[in-house]
Amino acid sequence: MSELWSAIVNDLTPYVPGEQPTSNNVIKLNTNENPYGPSPAALDAIRAEATDSLRLYPDPQAQKLKAALAKFHTIREAQVFVGNGSDEVLAHIFHGLLKHDEPILFPDISYSFYPVYCGLYDVAFKTVAVNDSFEIDLDEYPSKNGGVIFPNPNAPTGRALSRDKVKALLNRNRRSVVVVDEAYIAFGGHSLVDLIELYDNLLVVQTLSKSHALAGLRVGFAFGDSKLIEALERVKNSFNPYPLDRLAIAGAVAAIEDRTYFESSRDKVLATRERLSTALRGLGFEVLPSQTNFVFVSHKTYSANTIAQALRDRSILVRHFDHPRTMNFLRVTVGTDIEVDALLNALRDISGLA
Amino acid sequence: MSELWSAIVNDLTPYVPGEQPTSNNVIKLNTNENPYGPSPAALDAIRAEATDSLRLYPDPQAQKLKAALAKFHTIREAQVFVGNGSDEVLAHIFHGLLKHDEPILFPDISYSFYPVYCGLYDVAFKTVAVNDSFEIDLDEYPSKNGGVIFPNPNAPTGRALSRDKVKALLNRNRRSVVVVDEAYIAFGGHSLVDLIELYDNLLVVQTLSKSHALAGLRVGFAFGDSKLIEALERVKNSFNPYPLDRLAIAGAVAAIEDRTYFESSRDKVLATRERLSTALRGLGFEVLPSQTNFVFVSHKTYSANTIAQALRDRSILVRHFDHPRTMNFLRVTVGTDIEVDALLNALRDISGLA
Repeated sequence: MSELWSAIVNDLTPYVPGEQPTSNNVIKLNTNENPYGPSPAALDAIRAEATDSLRLYPDPQAQKLKAALAKFHTIREAQVFVGNGSDEVLAHIFHGLLKHDEPILFPDISYSFYPVYCGLYDVAFKTVAVNDSFEIDLDEYPSKNGGVIFPNPNAPTGRALSRDKVKALLNRNRRSVVVVDEAYIAFGGHSLVDLIELYDNLLVVQTLSKSHALAGLRVGFAFGDSKLIEALERVKNSFNPYPLDRLAIAGAVAAIEDRTYFESSRDKVLATRERLSTALRGLGFEVLPSQTNFVFVSHKTYSANTIAQALRDRSILVRHFDHPRTMNFLRVTVGTDIEVDALLNALRDISGLA
Repeated sequence: MSELWSAIVNDLTPYVPGEQPTSNNVIKLNTNENPYGPSPAALDAIRAEATDSLRLYPDPQAQKLKAALAKFHTIREAQVFVGNGSDEVLAHIFHGLLKHDEPILFPDISYSFYPVYCGLYDVAFKTVAVNDSFEIDLDEYPSKNGGVIFPNPNAPTGRALSRDKVKALLNRNRRSVVVVDEAYIAFGGHSLVDLIELYDNLLVVQTLSKSHALAGLRVGFAFGDSKLIEALERVKNSFNPYPLDRLAIAGAVAAIEDRTYFESSRDKVLATRERLSTALRGLGFEVLPSQTNFVFVSHKTYSANTIAQALRDRSILVRHFDHPRTMNFLRVTVGTDIEVDALLNALRDISGLA
């Protein structure tokens, strides 16, 4: 710390992102990237935008992207907010919509960035325990709150909530914002975007990082009532009016418009996920039912740490979180079939798992 | 406003960026973009990065970019912070380094985003009047403050401070952070980056937007003592760990390494600026001495508003700010020689200016 720092900086516990190795000689199943790469149309659009026009500022409203998203979801552009990845979008949500007298609520096992945002913006929070099957139980969320946020499907568990259960929460929680973080919705679960017409306090967050294999481009969104979007625009325009560069806008529009490519690569991920889940169960793993592009697993005999280290020795990265309730679990991204076979072979190779 | 908003949102007065017209049929001299386009090497690097690798997250530390900047300025990587444009970098500075009990200080005529950041992070501030020649007078800045920030050269005036004057401020202001915003330093003035070794409270902010014609890519930096950089990293990693996408990192590195192209296009801008200044004086304008890629001008007879509107009618955009002390001034970006000739012809055409 330093007397030159703003007081809040001393107390921050920054988020620690998954490892991004510089070597290409690893099988990277640790940060839920899509193994199939972006739509060729998106890459073409990016290359076409890499011209002298980069000397000009981007459209601060990213109107073309908002239009593409509005069309995709059959909503209005005024119901769309866009940002430099969904992490930035979430930051503006915590700052602009979740700071109230009452604490906000989120699951104890969930995206570990939520408490970090609370630290950054001095937002009070309470966590609500997921049940013994690692399911979010929305009945346990008291109506007196400053807001509610949860991923659906949840991460790192991979478990999804039914549409009816979220609707029940929305019906009894009308006075604070409910944020449904749909980072993984492309791989299962039911999106609630259509409900923003019915609930003016519902905000749905999505990203192109996983669904459209564009983690390296940084594009995220929020959908909600225009009044909620207005709050986010006010914060964004007081922070950085141009969060999306010209290349990101062009690439994102093309990716969203290429539904065929998206569906084809999603289907491959889903098929591999089922094969991976079955094989892992055969190797003595408990595998939570996943609606995402990862599986959350724990082994009957070997500790998660032991397995993660043994895999690392074989140049395979998976993610381990240091939470008391899930410290014996590993989060494993669904890779290509070749990567998954390499993982399964490595696990068989690790003494005793075969 | 809405009861769903965080309280702070109601009081925000967001920044209003200069107009970004969708039509290409305008001469755009309103947002200080570099007329010559980015280095061809930067465009090549971006195209080369538009591959399947976009499925992977970028390096959250943008180490290659930090290394290129450290090499360029002969400093250490730990003295470099990078962000999604200098607006984002400034936002993190206000949040992480300028929020203290005492108000921060900045010029009354300056970058109009500074008070907006203060609103976003609840930072107290006082403005200090520039003198009648629109120069920043650092002798007027009291030592009791929560921080000091000013652009050098200043915007929108274009006037630069001498190195000695800033050093004198630094010598008497050791207990709070001094931020020198060098967005326009490529076009004149003396950079203070080398002084970060001597003053652990000095932070220097730069951007590729103007100097390297990459406003559309969104890349900005701060240079300072590693303790100051650590505060910014802590804020950034609590906000968005991946502010720079893969394309921006690749393009920025190539642009910084292409010194020859940078110097050649800067020299063209400087030559045109002198020609433009002389011609405007011949048309009855007062032209402040500029160390930037714009000129700040007012006409003896016609109001700034009248001229701006008449130019707009001729499809030429310049920037007018609604500040009481400068409401009769226009900020005019130095364009290409062809654009500047079109501007001069339009001004001659406007009744009475010829």
